[in-house]
Amino acid sequence: MSQRVRIGMIGGGQGAFIGAVHRIALRMDDAFDLVAGCFGRDPENTRVTGAQLGIDPSRCYDSWEQMISDEAKLPEDQRIEAVSIVTPNHVHHGPAKAAMEAGFHVICDKPLCISQEQADDLATTVSSTGRVFALTHNYCASPMAREARERVARGDLGTIRKVFVEYLQGWLSEKLEETGQKQADWRTDPERSGPVGSLGDIGTHAYQLLEFVTGMKVTSIYAKLHTFVEGRALDDDDMVLLEMENGATGTLCSSQVCFGRENGLRLRVFGTKGALEWNQEQPNDLQVTGEDGSVTTIRSATGAAGDAAASLTRTPAGHPEGYLEAFGNIYSAFARAIRGEEQPVDCAYPTVEDGVRGVRFIGSALLSNKENRWVDIPG
Amino acid sequence: MSQRVRIGMIGGGQGAFIGAVHRIALRMDDAFDLVAGCFGRDPENTRVTGAQLGIDPSRCYDSWEQMISDEAKLPEDQRIEAVSIVTPNHVHHGPAKAAMEAGFHVICDKPLCISQEQADDLATTVSSTGRVFALTHNYCASPMAREARERVARGDLGTIRKVFVEYLQGWLSEKLEETGQKQADWRTDPERSGPVGSLGDIGTHAYQLLEFVTGMKVTSIYAKLHTFVEGRALDDDDMVLLEMENGATGTLCSSQVCFGRENGLRLRVFGTKGALEWNQEQPNDLQVTGEDGSVTTIRSATGAAGDAAASLTRTPAGHPEGYLEAFGNIYSAFARAIRGEEQPVDCAYPTVEDGVRGVRFIGSALLSNKENRWVDIPG
Amino acid sequence: MSQRVRIGMIGGGQGAFIGAVHRIALRMDDAFDLVAGCFGRDPENTRVTGAQLGIDPSRCYDSWEQMISDEAKLPEDQRIEAVSIVTPNHVHHGPAKAAMEAGFHVICDKPLCISQEQADDLATTVSSTGRVFALTHNYCASPMAREARERVARGDLGTIRKVFVEYLQGWLSEKLEETGQKQADWRTDPERSGPVGSLGDIGTHAYQLLEFVTGMKVTSIYAKLHTFVEGRALDDDDMVLLEMENGATGTLCSSQVCFGRENGLRLRVFGTKGALEWNQEQPNDLQVTGEDGSVTTIRSATGAAGDAAASLTRTPAGHPEGYLEAFGNIYSAFARAIRGEEQPVDCAYPTVEDGVRGVRFIGSALLSNKENRWVDIPG
Amino acid sequence: MSQRVRIGMIGGGQGAFIGAVHRIALRMDDAFDLVAGCFGRDPENTRVTGAQLGIDPSRCYDSWEQMISDEAKLPEDQRIEAVSIVTPNHVHHGPAKAAMEAGFHVICDKPLCISQEQADDLATTVSSTGRVFALTHNYCASPMAREARERVARGDLGTIRKVFVEYLQGWLSEKLEETGQKQADWRTDPERSGPVGSLGDIGTHAYQLLEFVTGMKVTSIYAKLHTFVEGRALDDDDMVLLEMENGATGTLCSSQVCFGRENGLRLRVFGTKGALEWNQEQPNDLQVTGEDGSVTTIRSATGAAGDAAASLTRTPAGHPEGYLEAFGNIYSAFARAIRGEEQPVDCAYPTVEDGVRGVRFIGSALLSNKENRWVDIPG
Repeated sequence: MSQRVRIGMIGGGQGAFIGAVHRIALRMDDAFDLVAGCFGRDPENTRVTGAQLGIDPSRCYDSWEQMISDEAKLPEDQRIEAVSIVTPNHVHHGPAKAAMEAGFHVICDKPLCISQEQADDLATTVSSTGRVFALTHNYCASPMAREARERVARGDLGTIRKVFVEYLQGWLSEKLEETGQKQADWRTDPERSGPVGSLGDIGTHAYQLLEFVTGMKVTSIYAKLHTFVEGRALDDDDMVLLEMENGATGTLCSSQVCFGRENGLRLRVFGTKGALEWNQEQPNDLQVTGEDGSVTTIRSATGAAGDAAASLTRTPAGHPEGYLEAFGNIYSAFARAIRGEEQPVDCAYPTVEDGVRGVRFIGSALLSNKENRWVDIPG
Repeated sequence: MSQRVRIGMIGGGQGAFIGAVHRIALRMDDAFDLVAGCFGRDPENTRVTGAQLGIDPSRCYDSWEQMISDEAKLPEDQRIEAVSIVTPNHVHHGPAKAAMEAGFHVICDKPLCISQEQADDLATTVSSTGRVFALTHNYCASPMAREARERVARGDLGTIRKVFVEYLQGWLSEKLEETGQKQADWRTDPERSGPVGSLGDIGTHAYQLLEFVTGMKVTSIYAKLHTFVEGRALDDDDMVLLEMENGATGTLCSSQVCFGRENGLRLRVFGTKGALEWNQEQPNDLQVTGEDGSVTTIRSATGAAGDAAASLTRTPAGHPEGYLEAFGNIYSAFARAIRGEEQPVDCAYPTVEDGVRGVRFIGSALLSNKENRWVDIPG
Repeated sequence: MSQRVRIGMIGGGQGAFIGAVHRIALRMDDAFDLVAGCFGRDPENTRVTGAQLGIDPSRCYDSWEQMISDEAKLPEDQRIEAVSIVTPNHVHHGPAKAAMEAGFHVICDKPLCISQEQADDLATTVSSTGRVFALTHNYCASPMAREARERVARGDLGTIRKVFVEYLQGWLSEKLEETGQKQADWRTDPERSGPVGSLGDIGTHAYQLLEFVTGMKVTSIYAKLHTFVEGRALDDDDMVLLEMENGATGTLCSSQVCFGRENGLRLRVFGTKGALEWNQEQPNDLQVTGEDGSVTTIRSATGAAGDAAASLTRTPAGHPEGYLEAFGNIYSAFARAIRGEEQPVDCAYPTVEDGVRGVRFIGSALLSNKENRWVDIPG
Repeated sequence: MSQRVRIGMIGGGQGAFIGAVHRIALRMDDAFDLVAGCFGRDPENTRVTGAQLGIDPSRCYDSWEQMISDEAKLPEDQRIEAVSIVTPNHVHHGPAKAAMEAGFHVICDKPLCISQEQADDLATTVSSTGRVFALTHNYCASPMAREARERVARGDLGTIRKVFVEYLQGWLSEKLEETGQKQADWRTDPERSGPVGSLGDIGTHAYQLLEFVTGMKVTSIYAKLHTFVEGRALDDDDMVLLEMENGATGTLCSSQVCFGRENGLRLRVFGTKGALEWNQEQPNDLQVTGEDGSVTTIRSATGAAGDAAASLTRTPAGHPEGYLEAFGNIYSAFARAIRGEEQPVDCAYPTVEDGVRGVRFIGSALLSNKENRWVDIPG
C-alpha cells in the first residue's frame, strides 16, 4: 500500500452509527489517516469525538464549510486529500460539491442526495472537477456479490429472466422515532431523509446491488409505497415490480416493518441455464445453481471463487469476513483510485452514476406510486 | 379407523404423476379401498393400470360417465362411495358434478375447474347434493402449515402486516411440451389447462396456502402474467401485488421458469409482534420469530408444536414426513367426513369454497393483467 | 406390481410405535396384504388391533407360535407368505426362526436379536431354509443414503480417510421409563432390550449406515459406554473410535441423552478427493464436496441424483419424501425378493448378515468398554 | 478509547498469513500504533514489510533480540509498550520471555509454545514481571461464543452432560509442504511446530473453546493421533475422547485432512435441560435448544443476545462480523488491560494459563496416544 491518504470526516459524531463503520472501514487496510473532522452540528460533539479519535484539535472544525475552506489553506502535504461524508441525506450534496470544488476527493454515504437536481449537479461536479467520487453501496463490494457479478457476466446463467431482490428489516415496526432513537429520528423525517424513507435508506441498496450483479439496468417499474406505522411521514414498506433492459422481470421489496428481520438484503437471479442467490447476512456463501439444477455453495476465499472475489478477501477460506470488510473494500478502492493505482476489478467502487441512478429510481417510484402506473427509469 | 371407504378413480393411468400420488395418499392411513377406476381416455390404459392395481376388471371402465352410471347400479354395500378425480383441469367439472349427482362423494385435484361458471356450478352442486367435496390443496395439510395457521389465529404474530408467498419451479424453463413430456403437454395447453398456466397450476396453491395460514382473504390484486418461453400459449411466470382484508400487503409470485427450482412453495408472514416462515421443501420446520426477534424452529411432532399439528403426524419427532403424508392427511380427513366422524382440526380439508376462490383469483388476475389495474376479488 | 404378498404381523399392537410404521410402509407401494397378526401378548390387544385393521378375527392369534402353526395349515393360496416382526428385541429370534422353518419369509425390526448365539442361529436358519430375510435398517433405503453409497463406490471421493457417524437423541434425558412410557420402558430393560440400550437401539443403525455407504467394514473399535440417568440399567450414551478395513478412522457416537435432539442420524465421509454428508432429518439433501472443495446439495429425485436413488423415489424433485417412504422401500424390496423379481439396486434391503454384524458390533463394544482396549470386529 | 498503545511486531512479514490478521485486528478499534517490527529472519523482509506499513526504518529491526533491547533504550514516551508475537511456535517462548523481562506487555499467537517447560517458564515470567500477557485464541472472543459461555454459566443448560467439539480442515489433504507453501511448511515441521501438528495448530483452539464455553476443565483424555499423508512427520488427524470435571463426556476431533473443510470449528454442548451449538464459520448465529426442545437462533447484536456479547460487537444486528472482528476483540481487551481500564466481560482475553493448559493437553494427548490409555490433564 502506498502512502496513506489524509482524510477528513463530516458527520459521524456521538450517537451516530455509520460514522464508526466508516472509520473502521478506512482503517481496515491501513490506507488512510483520519486527520480532520466536523463530526456534528454541535461543536462540542466534534470536540469530544475528535479527542477520542486522537485528532489534532486544530483540525476539529465547527462546520463542514469551515473544514473545507481551512483545510484547503493548509500546505499541500498536510491538508486532507479526501472527505468522507456520513451525514443524513440532506447534508450530502452541499459538502460533497464544496469538497470537490475545493479539490478534495469524496466518499459519501448513500443515497447520493435528496433530489434529482442535486444528483445531476453532483454528477456535473464530479465531471468538471475530475475528483474521485465513491458512494458507499458497501454490499456490492462483498466478495461473493462480486463473484455473482462475474458469473453473470461470463454467461454462467445464460440469459437472465427473473430477478428477486429484497431488503427486509423490522427495526421500524414500532414508532421508534418517538423514543428519541437517533437513527430512526432522521430516517423518518422528510427534512433530513428526503422524499422517501425505506425506499431511500435500503431500497436503493437493493436496486444498486441488482444492477451491479446483473450488469443490466432496470428500465421500468411499478411501485407501491406504504406507511404502516401510524403517523409516520415517510414510507416504511415498498413493493416494486420491475422490468430490466433485456426483458427480464422481477420484484424489489424493501421494508422496515418486517418484524424481526435484521438486515435481510437478498438477491436471486434466474437465467436460462443457471441461477444464483446471495444473502448479505451470510455473506461468505454464494448459492449457485448449475446446469443440472443442483445448488453449489461457492465460498469466499476458496478456489471455487474467482480472482475478482479473491482480490476482495483478506483471510483464507473459512475465516468469515462480513459487513465491515466489504465496507473496507470500498475505502481501499477509493484510496487506490486517488493514488492512481490499478484496481483489481472493474467497477471497483460505486460512483456518482450509481448515485444518480438511485435517485432516479426513487423519483420514478414516487411517480409510479402516485399515478398508479408503470414508469420508465431514464437510462 | 372405521370401515374403509370404497373409492373409484378417474384419471391417473400410465404416464400420469398425480394419480400415483393420490393412490399412495389414500392407502397411507388405510381408510380406503380403491375398487374401481377409469384411468384414462384410452381403455387399454385403464385395463393395464387396473390390472396393476389389482382392481376387478369388471370395474375398470372405458369412460368416467360409464363408471359413474354403472357403479351407481351396484348394490349399496358394493358400489363405490366416493370418486377421486385426478384428470387435467378441463375434466374436473364434468365428472365431479356427475359423481355428486349420482350420490358419490368427491375428492378432486386442483384447480377446481377452468371457469367461474363451472366453479359456481360445482359449489351449487355440493350444496344441493350434500355430498362431501374435498380439493387436494395438499400443502395446507402439512403439519407445520397447520401449526402456522394456529399461531396466527391465536394472535402470536399480532396484526398481520406483510405477507410474501412464492411458488417457484424451473421445470418449464425449456419448451418441455415439445418433447412429449405428458405433464408439460397438458399444463401448457389452454384446452386442458384452462385460461392460465403457471398461475392455475401452482399460483392457486400459493393463494390457498396464504388464505389458509392467515385466516384472511385477499381482497385486491395487481397481476402481471408473463410467458418467457417462446411459443408457449399460457403464462409461465406470474407476479402479483396484493392486499388482504385487514390492510396487510404483500406479493405472490408463481413461476415455472425459475431455473433449477424444484417445488419452492414458501410463505412468510410478518405481524406487529411476530413472524413466521414455512417452506414446503423442508416441511417439518416452521420458522417462528418471537417477540425478542429471534427465530425458533418449531419442528413437527415435537412438544413445541400444538395439538392440531400433532393430529396430522404419524411418527415421532425427527422422523421426517413429507409431501405424501400431507396428501394422505387430506384423504383421511375426507374419509372421516364421509363417515361423519369428528375432525381433529377445523378446516380439515380444502373445500369447494377454496376452489371457487382459486378460480376467482385466476379471473381477477387475468383481468388485472389485461387492464393493467388493481382488481378486487369478490368475497 | 405383481400380486400382493400376504403377510402377518407379530407385535405392533396398541401403544406401540413401530408397528404402525411397518404397516404404513407395507401399504406404501401396495405390495402387501396384511391378513393375520398377533399384535401383543395380551389377546385383547390383538383382537382390538386386528379389528381396527380390518383383519379377519379368525386370523388374529393369541400367540405368535399359534399364528405360525395355524397359518401354515391354511391352503397355500390363503396362508401368509411372510411375517413382519416388530416386537422388542428379545422376541426377534424366536418368531423369526420359527417362521422361516415354517416356510415363511421374514422381515424383522433391528437389532437382529440380543446375543451372538441367536444371531448366528438366525443366519444359519436363513441359509438352511432359503427364506428371504430382511432387517429394517430403514435409513439405508433413503434415496440419498443410496446416492451416497453409489458415489463412494464409483470413486468420487477417492480413498476414504475419515468417517464420522452419529445418532443423537434426547428423549431419554430424563428417566422416562419411570413414567410408564412404553417405548422407554422396554428399551431400558435388559430383559427385553438385551445387553445394551442406546447402542443397540440406535448405534446399530449408525453402524449399518456407515458400512452401507462406505462399502467397507469396520475392523476395530474402542468403545466407552455411559449411563447418565441414575438408576438406568443400560447405556444411554456411547462413544466409539473406529478403524475401517482400508485404514480409515473415525468416530461413532450414539446417545439418547443429548437434550433436544430428535433423531439425529448423520454421516460424514471424507476421502482423498471428495466428501459427503447426509443427515436423515433432512433426508432429501445429500451434501457432496467436489474436487474444488465446494459443497453441492444433491437433491432427491433430480437429475443430479443417479438411477439408483431415482429407483427409490415416488415423487418428482421438491416433493419431499421421508422416513416412511424409506421404510416402504425396504418393504417393497422385500416383496420383490419374495416374488423373485429383479431389484433396481444392489443390496436392496439389509439382510441377516447386516444383523449379524450389528450384533458383533455390540459384542465388541461391550468387550472394549469392559477391558478398556481396542477390540476387533470379526469379518 | 484512551491513547493508543505503541506496539512492535515479531514475525508477520511477506508470505505470512497471520501477521496481516494481527495487524488488521490491532487497527480495528484504533487502540494501537504499530511503530516497530522485526517481521522475519531475513532483514530484507523486515525492511520491505516495514516500508509497506509506514514504519520508521530505524525501528525495523534485524532480530527480535535487537528490537527488544533497542526499544527498551528509547525514551519511555516513545518506545513500544507491547509486543505482538506472530512467529511459528518455536519462536514464541524466547521473544515472549525476553519482552516481558524488558518490561513489555505481550500478545502472542497460539499455541503458547512447544514444551511444558517453556509453558511453565512463561507462566512464571508473567507472574514475576506483572506484564499483561494475552494469547490469541480468537474464537472465544466471538460474540456468540461469549454468549454461549454466559448461557452455560447462568445455568440455562442445567448440568452439562455431553460435549462435542471438532475443528476440521482439509487444506493438508495433500502434501502441501512439498510445494513450498509456507503455512504448510512450518506447521508440518517438528522443529518449528513442536511435537504435534494438527493437534497444536487447531486442536488447542478447540480445547480452549470447550473449556471457555463450559467454564469447566477437561480432566482426562484418550487420544489417537494419526498421520494420513505419507511422509508427513506430524499428526494431521486427531481423535480424543474426554471427560470433564463434572463427569460430562465427549469428543474432540481435529483434522487437517478432511477434504474440502475450510475452518470448521464447531462446538455442541448438551445439558440436562438445554443445549447449544456454535460454528465459527457462521459466527453470528448461536443455536440454543430451549426447555421445550426447539432450537432458537440467537443472533449477534440483537436483543436476544446478552450484554456481554453486545460488548463485543461494533455493528447492529444483521451486519455480520467475523474472524477479524473477533481477533480485534482480543487486541482491544489487551489494550484495556494495559491501560488498566475495566473490561466489559470476565475472561476478556485468553491468558498464559490458557496457554499452559493447551500445552498440557498436547502433552497428555501424546502420552495417551503412545501408551494407549486414558491420561489425566493436571489441574
